[in-house]
Amino acid sequence: MNDFELYQPTYYVFGKGKQSRVGELVRRFGATKVLLHYGGGSVVRSGLLDQVRNFLNEETIPFVELGGVVPNPRGGLVYEGIRLCREKGIDFILSIGGGSAIDSGKAIAVGTCYDGDFWDLWSGKVIPTGGLKHGCILTLPATGSEGSNSAVIMLEEGMIKRGLSCDFNRPAFSILNPELTYTLPKYQTACGIVDMMAHVLERYFTNTTDVDLTDRMSEAVLQAIIKAGPVAMEDPTDYEARAALMWSGTVAHNGILGVGRQEDWASHNIEHELSALYDLAHGAGLAVVFPNWMRYVVDKHVARFAQYAVRVWNCEMDFTDPRNTALEGIDRTRSFFKSLGMPLSFEDFGGKEEDIPMMTSKARSDAEGLLGAFERLTKEDISNIYHMCCE
Amino acid sequence: MNDFELYQPTYYVFGKGKQSRVGELVRRFGATKVLLHYGGGSVVRSGLLDQVRNFLNEETIPFVELGGVVPNPRGGLVYEGIRLCREKGIDFILSIGGGSAIDSGKAIAVGTCYDGDFWDLWSGKVIPTGGLKHGCILTLPATGSEGSNSAVIMLEEGMIKRGLSCDFNRPAFSILNPELTYTLPKYQTACGIVDMMAHVLERYFTNTTDVDLTDRMSEAVLQAIIKAGPVAMEDPTDYEARAALMWSGTVAHNGILGVGRQEDWASHNIEHELSALYDLAHGAGLAVVFPNWMRYVVDKHVARFAQYAVRVWNCEMDFTDPRNTALEGIDRTRSFFKSLGMPLSFEDFGGKEEDIPMMTSKARSDAEGLLGAFERLTKEDISNIYHMCCE
Repeated sequence: MNDFELYQPTYYVFGKGKQSRVGELVRRFGATKVLLHYGGGSVVRSGLLDQVRNFLNEETIPFVELGGVVPNPRGGLVYEGIRLCREKGIDFILSIGGGSAIDSGKAIAVGTCYDGDFWDLWSGKVIPTGGLKHGCILTLPATGSEGSNSAVIMLEEGMIKRGLSCDFNRPAFSILNPELTYTLPKYQTACGIVDMMAHVLERYFTNTTDVDLTDRMSEAVLQAIIKAGPVAMEDPTDYEARAALMWSGTVAHNGILGVGRQEDWASHNIEHELSALYDLAHGAGLAVVFPNWMRYVVDKHVARFAQYAVRVWNCEMDFTDPRNTALEGIDRTRSFFKSLGMPLSFEDFGGKEEDIPMMTSKARSDAEGLLGAFERLTKEDISNIYHMCCE
Repeated sequence: MNDFELYQPTYYVFGKGKQSRVGELVRRFGATKVLLHYGGGSVVRSGLLDQVRNFLNEETIPFVELGGVVPNPRGGLVYEGIRLCREKGIDFILSIGGGSAIDSGKAIAVGTCYDGDFWDLWSGKVIPTGGLKHGCILTLPATGSEGSNSAVIMLEEGMIKRGLSCDFNRPAFSILNPELTYTLPKYQTACGIVDMMAHVLERYFTNTTDVDLTDRMSEAVLQAIIKAGPVAMEDPTDYEARAALMWSGTVAHNGILGVGRQEDWASHNIEHELSALYDLAHGAGLAVVFPNWMRYVVDKHVARFAQYAVRVWNCEMDFTDPRNTALEGIDRTRSFFKSLGMPLSFEDFGGKEEDIPMMTSKARSDAEGLLGAFERLTKEDISNIYHMCCE
């Protein structure tokens, strides 16, 4: 087990109707003026936005609104939010929505406390030293942003998608009401399921030894998602399945499963280029990339993939040839994503093989020019994985 | 799944030599004058106390010392600590040791901010509304106090042991260095293992339905403890086993395994009377009580105990008569505790059958005169369980 630090200060309020607690929570964390931040669409149609306005008004908490967040949230709106916060003396960001609204809110919160261009922080040029407090009401369990220290923003110029992880990105509070997810389209529910599974898997595939505790906890979360996911797909108003998914999504990414172990994140970064270029939902892109990444690296890591297959998918262990078991686990993963209606290849979402060189060149890599930790991928490896996604 | 709130603001710093971070962490959480709180014995002998004094001096953080915490920490020292904090203008409690030192430090921290008798808070008469900040350096993984919102104190008058749970009991930071546990006697290591398993089990045995996620996470933590425990017993300097136990003890009791589910806590309360009367280590008392509580309630909850047996102990499911499987899981629990050298009956630690009426009458019960949630125990039930402990 590696040394680690873990800081998860988010106050979680989970359950039916809990959005009514928003005024009290905003006050608790010292807000005097709030930026109400959201996308549009379902948050407006469902009446949730109006509810929240009323709750804030009841507590006489002044607020300014900034809607218009889109999936793969854009830098442009972050700049606008930062300007608004400074002009209006806002000291708390309240995001309503899924990961996009929350991530955008985080970037505004952290960016407001930085004198220069906020992209300096997201591009890794400057390390943030502060941030406004922020909280959220979650409507789409997927990214885990409601409990995580990370936020992903896309800069329109060059369609560059980058994530920043820092303690200032941790929400002060998160309101999690599974009922708010009843109206999610099946496609978004499915994307969320894949995304939260991917957050566990990015931590699960590690070379760190003696991580039995977090291995088993990760397997537990994966099994719970695999059980609840199809139930929620079948009956979108099944409270228990929605609740299991919502909390799984938070646990998957709030840090508890990654402590003391090297994490990978190659698949996420390979996927980022898909969603940036095709404006594809992140979860859908991950359904394409992750199983192909698995197939690309499995032969060097048969034991770990066999453990994954046996413990997560209840595959029978082939003691004579564990590779068979390893491959079966990968197949089960693919089949599960397919059963959710997710794309599995470029063809399924309209990706183009000729874009691979550009995506490969744009894909993030570290100082050594490599990506990932479980397997250190060269640009050639990344290109090969994109090509496997075309098969 | 039940509605829940979860707040775990503790900043964890985990790994080799991390006690060197103490000065920086104390500063980070705003301390201007520290109460250095500890027991004696190993913390002194190991040189850890001297190290911490030096680290605080290097950061020029003024501190006052209060040693003398004993197992089952006493109210008398809490009163002394509160007086000291007020007289000296102390604003941060730094505890070094196991659960006793940490719990005593929590009671001082919360008690200092209450005008009346701190026992009003622990006896449940008054709800706390504030507390000094506090942190710890853990030397004995067991109680989970380093991450929990609870603290147990024993009042000398009447030898009454009571726990209080509230957010002010959450440490601001906890330093977890597994190396500091190398010198623990086998008996204390074993008591810690039982205690942390009991913290999971008190949450695991629930009547709340649709708690698959936390069920599986609890099973994961139990399996990790069962794997690491014997390794640490065999080789006290096995870093990985010590690390697994240390973090398991924290996760077992910091709240993450109990969210959304009714918890039980009957066995803990039944045990409290044993450790209060015989000054028995809490973990040793739990090794006696818990399997007997299991045997007492199993017939009404065969399915859950069978799940426990199969998933935690890898027992084979007896589909024809699941009760056999349920009982095997309980036997495996008992055998495991025995293999650690723990007592299993009154005889093993010198308990007396004639004390049962007194312990039964003193054992905590709720407004309805009952104890526990999984099974609601009457005084007669409690007495019966004590008698089973004599067999």
